Amino acid sequence: MHYDTIAAISTPLGEGAIAIVRLSGDEAVNIADKLFRGKTPLHEAQSHTIHYGKLIDPKTGEAVEEVMTSVLLAPRTFTREDVVEINCHGGLVSVNRVLQLVLREGARLAEPGEFTKRAFLNGRIDLSQAEAVIDLIRAKTDRAMNVALNQMEGRLSRLITELRQTLLETIAHVEVNIDYPEYDAEEMTHQLLNEKLGFVRGEIEKILQTASQGKILREGLSTAIIGRPNVGKSSLLNALVHENKAIVTDIAGTTRDVIEEYVNVRGVPLRLVDTAGIRETEDIVEKIGVEKSRKVLREADLILLVLNANETLSLEDENLFKAAADMDKIVIVNKTDLEPNIDMARVAELAGKSPVVATSLLKEEGVDELEKSIAELFFEAGIEGQDLTYVSNTRHIALLHQAIHHIEEALGGIEMSLPIDMVQIDITRAWELLGEIIGDAVSESLIDQLFSQFCLGK
Amino acid sequence: MHYDTIAAISTPLGEGAIAIVRLSGDEAVNIADKLFRGKTPLHEAQSHTIHYGKLIDPKTGEAVEEVMTSVLLAPRTFTREDVVEINCHGGLVSVNRVLQLVLREGARLAEPGEFTKRAFLNGRIDLSQAEAVIDLIRAKTDRAMNVALNQMEGRLSRLITELRQTLLETIAHVEVNIDYPEYDAEEMTHQLLNEKLGFVRGEIEKILQTASQGKILREGLSTAIIGRPNVGKSSLLNALVHENKAIVTDIAGTTRDVIEEYVNVRGVPLRLVDTAGIRETEDIVEKIGVEKSRKVLREADLILLVLNANETLSLEDENLFKAAADMDKIVIVNKTDLEPNIDMARVAELAGKSPVVATSLLKEEGVDELEKSIAELFFEAGIEGQDLTYVSNTRHIALLHQAIHHIEEALGGIEMSLPIDMVQIDITRAWELLGEIIGDAVSESLIDQLFSQFCLGK
Repeated sequence: MHYDTIAAISTPLGEGAIAIVRLSGDEAVNIADKLFRGKTPLHEAQSHTIHYGKLIDPKTGEAVEEVMTSVLLAPRTFTREDVVEINCHGGLVSVNRVLQLVLREGARLAEPGEFTKRAFLNGRIDLSQAEAVIDLIRAKTDRAMNVALNQMEGRLSRLITELRQTLLETIAHVEVNIDYPEYDAEEMTHQLLNEKLGFVRGEIEKILQTASQGKILREGLSTAIIGRPNVGKSSLLNALVHENKAIVTDIAGTTRDVIEEYVNVRGVPLRLVDTAGIRETEDIVEKIGVEKSRKVLREADLILLVLNANETLSLEDENLFKAAADMDKIVIVNKTDLEPNIDMARVAELAGKSPVVATSLLKEEGVDELEKSIAELFFEAGIEGQDLTYVSNTRHIALLHQAIHHIEEALGGIEMSLPIDMVQIDITRAWELLGEIIGDAVSESLIDQLFSQFCLGK
Repeated sequence: MHYDTIAAISTPLGEGAIAIVRLSGDEAVNIADKLFRGKTPLHEAQSHTIHYGKLIDPKTGEAVEEVMTSVLLAPRTFTREDVVEINCHGGLVSVNRVLQLVLREGARLAEPGEFTKRAFLNGRIDLSQAEAVIDLIRAKTDRAMNVALNQMEGRLSRLITELRQTLLETIAHVEVNIDYPEYDAEEMTHQLLNEKLGFVRGEIEKILQTASQGKILREGLSTAIIGRPNVGKSSLLNALVHENKAIVTDIAGTTRDVIEEYVNVRGVPLRLVDTAGIRETEDIVEKIGVEKSRKVLREADLILLVLNANETLSLEDENLFKAAADMDKIVIVNKTDLEPNIDMARVAELAGKSPVVATSLLKEEGVDELEKSIAELFFEAGIEGQDLTYVSNTRHIALLHQAIHHIEEALGGIEMSLPIDMVQIDITRAWELLGEIIGDAVSESLIDQLFSQFCLGK
């Protein structure tokens, strides 16, 4: 396939030592050659070589930048097309100027994700691998990064492809049964279908078991710290941020957008909700009012409910437990350095199955145990490191659920001895749904939508 | 000279398509080879080639990243040392992991500017060229970028070197006169010194004439918009930001630091002071109080004083003129779409030499003329584009002023017929001071301090 030549700034915007303008397409080398003055012209360069020179404005002949230009010829490139990377001094004006020249000489500004899209369209990677590229860039922790990396290497793709192969075999078997019933007893077909479909269902269920953890790794765990005034909410926040490296993410695109704060707690990325609110005032619950605090609670994946060990439980404390009743939470009994006045039996009763951790944030005690509780709440022991084929992508999860639904329909049909060609419809649908994960027969609008989530230049 | 091997992330931090970890030093290739698994090991690679492969963690053997690795061997590199650039998928976690591995395998984390410092220490560029590298990265407009580029190419260095050569010749001549007075008449020496020193002084003065403009290009023009409530201050701000691309700069280092806003008005970077204040409230002057507004005014390089054409001049207006009396300002008579009630003769009188521009920001009239006034106020007509050897660096400007001082002392000494060896002291000092601009015989602490202003990875 041949597409036009695209270009974009491929490094984050900001002041840095190096910035890269990347071109991809048949005209990449020609366009770069119009601007580049080095020892040899780029069209004479071998693939995978780097060339020092100046970038000139062909209109004025003026030197615009000192650059290193990399020539990467198809097919051994990220996009499988000819790629030129113009490596210039960092800085907004500098790199923008290079981009403008490249566009003036015939390249088109790439859409977000368009380089990766080409890698997909040119068959170098499948859709789930392409999606992993975004996850890799957005990864908040090492573990999330490993998940993305494994998906990018095609682990999920291989699993899905195997399951599809199994489904295809059953479909083929059914076809034979329909076309040549004399060769096969319907009962045997039923038995075989039962077995194969049961296997596929089991495998998908296994994958889906990793989904909630995968999603947490991918998107972070929205965490709210609640408690009465002066129980130590901001101390808790500071302890978490201080002990762990805070990851401040600049949402792609402009510098103006929201800045989110993540804390990496033993590989679990916590996204701290309303951090600013907590920092500014100790009494967030009162300040933002019951209604608003309920909203914060509803949106959180994890509640850290802080109590004061030095005081008896108040009605407010009990209300906080009510508000967080059905949610994942950890109860923190803080200020254990002071005289204990809290009724721990009642706390345990209110906490129910949720872990209770005693801390003295003042003396920096108990934070370790708290972090352990957080990690355990979301990752069963032993799971880490071993099996990294998590599904983490909402689109994939939805497709897997739909596929299971159709497999169950098929199994039900067999149970009820429905005609085999009725059953086949559901199997085929499951096969198609799994195909959408790896990008087999997906619509163009879906592809456009998926890649538009990328950052520019990827 | 041989230094240890340094490494740093050389692209801006943030989510981007590509991130680069750069190594420089004798061990660069060896360290990278411990981590890189590709078709061929990097130590067998030719210079200026790119290699696709995986980065592994040698401790676990696990693949950590998919990378493109560039090998650039001394001396044809930025630092004149062996350089390896590991080009990985963007994203904070990803690039940090690569950096950590490289550091574990023996590289040292580079200090800010240390790559450029090596280029300087290894004699590839002089100090003024190295300083231009920062300016290039921080450039806010095309014109500022051109100034930096010219300085990086060594234009300023060449000029300074020529002047030093002239001074050296006079010193040599004086030496001859001192050592062998029989070869030369002292009068002739005086005449020649007068001539040569006069020439050097003239040349330095020419360079210094560009200093104020150079500084503006480099650092931006701190601009305050003042006026009574409801005269249209925020409309003016919006018009400037809207018509021109706002440049939001993220001060190097952390995302948390102050965000400054620049507007590029015909090549002049305006740094808008207290933008937030103006955006939030129309009556900045009243809100922040007289004392504070005076402070804003004192720190500004340019005042945009806004009046309402529809109203008569008030005492407040007159006070604003008083506050901005001796400053560079432009008077904007806004709301010309309404009935004119302002006494324009009095406005002209109050404005004195400052330009007065009539605008209707509501109807988007007059903004062009305002921008023209801003550009003219700081750049004399015709100067643009031609002579780009501006000095813009405060350090350089101070050294040039000191050099001129010593040249004038020498000239005065000649006038007073001081002994020639007394005069020589001043000439030598001027020669030394000019040398400091290009880094000839500067102290190590100065070098450290200069390079510490750089961003990491450069």
